[in-house]
Amino acid sequence: MGAVTVAVDANGADLGPAEVAAGAAIAAIRGVRVVLYGPAEQIGAAPEGVEVVDAPVSIAKVPDPARAVRATRRASIVQVAAAVAAGDADAFVSGGSTGAALAAGLFEVKRARGIYRPALATPVPIPGNPITFLDVGANVEVRSEHLVQFAFMGAALAQTVLGVARPRVALLSNGEEPTKGTAVVVEAHAMLAERTRGSAALEFVGNIEGTDLTRGAADVVVTDGFTGNVSLKLLEGLSQTLLGAVREAALSSPRAKAGGLLLRPALRGLRDQIDPEGAGGAYLLGLRRLGVVPHGRFTRRGFSQAILLAARGVSGDLAGRTHASLEAAGALRRAPAGAGAPSGSAASVPSP
Amino acid sequence: MGAVTVAVDANGADLGPAEVAAGAAIAAIRGVRVVLYGPAEQIGAAPEGVEVVDAPVSIAKVPDPARAVRATRRASIVQVAAAVAAGDADAFVSGGSTGAALAAGLFEVKRARGIYRPALATPVPIPGNPITFLDVGANVEVRSEHLVQFAFMGAALAQTVLGVARPRVALLSNGEEPTKGTAVVVEAHAMLAERTRGSAALEFVGNIEGTDLTRGAADVVVTDGFTGNVSLKLLEGLSQTLLGAVREAALSSPRAKAGGLLLRPALRGLRDQIDPEGAGGAYLLGLRRLGVVPHGRFTRRGFSQAILLAARGVSGDLAGRTHASLEAAGALRRAPAGAGAPSGSAASVPSP
Repeated sequence: MGAVTVAVDANGADLGPAEVAAGAAIAAIRGVRVVLYGPAEQIGAAPEGVEVVDAPVSIAKVPDPARAVRATRRASIVQVAAAVAAGDADAFVSGGSTGAALAAGLFEVKRARGIYRPALATPVPIPGNPITFLDVGANVEVRSEHLVQFAFMGAALAQTVLGVARPRVALLSNGEEPTKGTAVVVEAHAMLAERTRGSAALEFVGNIEGTDLTRGAADVVVTDGFTGNVSLKLLEGLSQTLLGAVREAALSSPRAKAGGLLLRPALRGLRDQIDPEGAGGAYLLGLRRLGVVPHGRFTRRGFSQAILLAARGVSGDLAGRTHASLEAAGALRRAPAGAGAPSGSAASVPSP
Repeated sequence: MGAVTVAVDANGADLGPAEVAAGAAIAAIRGVRVVLYGPAEQIGAAPEGVEVVDAPVSIAKVPDPARAVRATRRASIVQVAAAVAAGDADAFVSGGSTGAALAAGLFEVKRARGIYRPALATPVPIPGNPITFLDVGANVEVRSEHLVQFAFMGAALAQTVLGVARPRVALLSNGEEPTKGTAVVVEAHAMLAERTRGSAALEFVGNIEGTDLTRGAADVVVTDGFTGNVSLKLLEGLSQTLLGAVREAALSSPRAKAGGLLLRPALRGLRDQIDPEGAGGAYLLGLRRLGVVPHGRFTRRGFSQAILLAARGVSGDLAGRTHASLEAAGALRRAPAGAGAPSGSAASVPSP
């Protein structure tokens, strides 16, 4: 991974630019070349292996990120995307606003040829049954052909980054039967059943319900960005709430307290395993190059994981493999030459 | 509750009609009069306080429940709904197929005046922060005015059955800002903000994300039946998976084993608290009278809770209060006299 360069946006993190810089330092030790765009004054001395570019302008909190990206060329998120577009970096990382990252990606890096819509895809560390989940927020409303592309994008991710040879891909729905779901889901089901017959890239296992998502029924789970965002945050919220309830149960009596003390190291392992920071955030797939969007609330650990996630995606040529897989399946958009332009990008930024 | 009569469908339960009968017996001991419709041969001797009506025909597993309800007048689910429509029972309970229960409810009991669509509303036992969640599967696609009605229906439930004086009601979305969500959610947000200003029935607290749903940010959470069904099953699945992982952690070393043994009683309490059987299932709201839909996989305990849930709703006049609350808010459908007919019911049965 020594050859990989990642452009990192230091603005927008809840804990401030210095925390992102600390994460960059960890990733640099692990062999990634990091260029950090943010307020040099707050970042201070550049850590070893990290180049700092002074970029104090942030649009992480603006209400209309698509417009801000076009109007604010000096914004750090625009600069990291532009660095990737110019070939100065291989991928970008931004924990500011998903909407701004998506808009900057579309505007600077541009959609890959034949892709309808970029999607946010994230590993979800469900105990015993990790899954790749998309779209977790790039597109609150989708058409069936978007879901079909997401299936191949997610499969390429699981194959390239997680090493799953032929990922089992499922559509999230309110029932297993092909007739269950919204009209869009039902149509996507039929299209996927046809498009994936005999596919080497993935095995389409049909619809799965929420219950089965946590039980290892699929490696990749596909849904629209509204359902995906709500679901991902439900999973994160409930994990915290339940582990909190276990902790409280372990304070409910002297006997339980003794048990809790003995059990603590084992439970700490479980807590670490399901911690979203370990996953590093979500890949922005479907652009000509990769982006990674960590949670704004991450600590340095999460940001370092996000940078390493980006580097892993670059090393495995995730963008190229995604494209090849879509092409092999005949799932690329058939459009006049020159498609992939950033037109209409504003419309596709109703983000999380 | 001695005066309440509940018509119960014994068909469709995973564990068979005898298990439903055992649940009916428990509810009868608690003072509910139960009329049980199912195969008398499999049910055997009627338990004390339970009347058995031989109804061996089941449509719980048919692919097109709306059509089956019209064509199969002898089906047990049709008979329980007809008993309610005729005034022979105050509410019905069916754990067979949600689609069939919804279709039978629409066809026999009929939509209440001014209601666009019935919704499935269920208490969700999140530790420390129980919520009322709807729609969990009656309508996979909704319009904004449906979500507005669901808000008042859920609030009436929380008020009547759970005793929450002025429930905080939220819309589930992919961000807290009023601009976040699908077009339908954004429109529903604006309508609710206006309709609920100064309302005594509920406090509209705006959008909440998945993370906040588990943290007590609202008493009632409103969404469409697709997102609601997926979310509810995710919550159930993850609860089981996480408690299973805690159990495994408690087997990972001799030290952890000792801790697990000491902690077991306290964790059993948590497990019981979040067990979906304790909640009893979902209310079918928006009909002229109440229905309750338990999980088909429930044991006798869950079915007894479902019958008690139905009886509680009847005692508190949940159907009447829902209507009064919608009327006071001006949220009833303004339609020519005679609205509420079952026309179009087939279209509204794309169920979970």
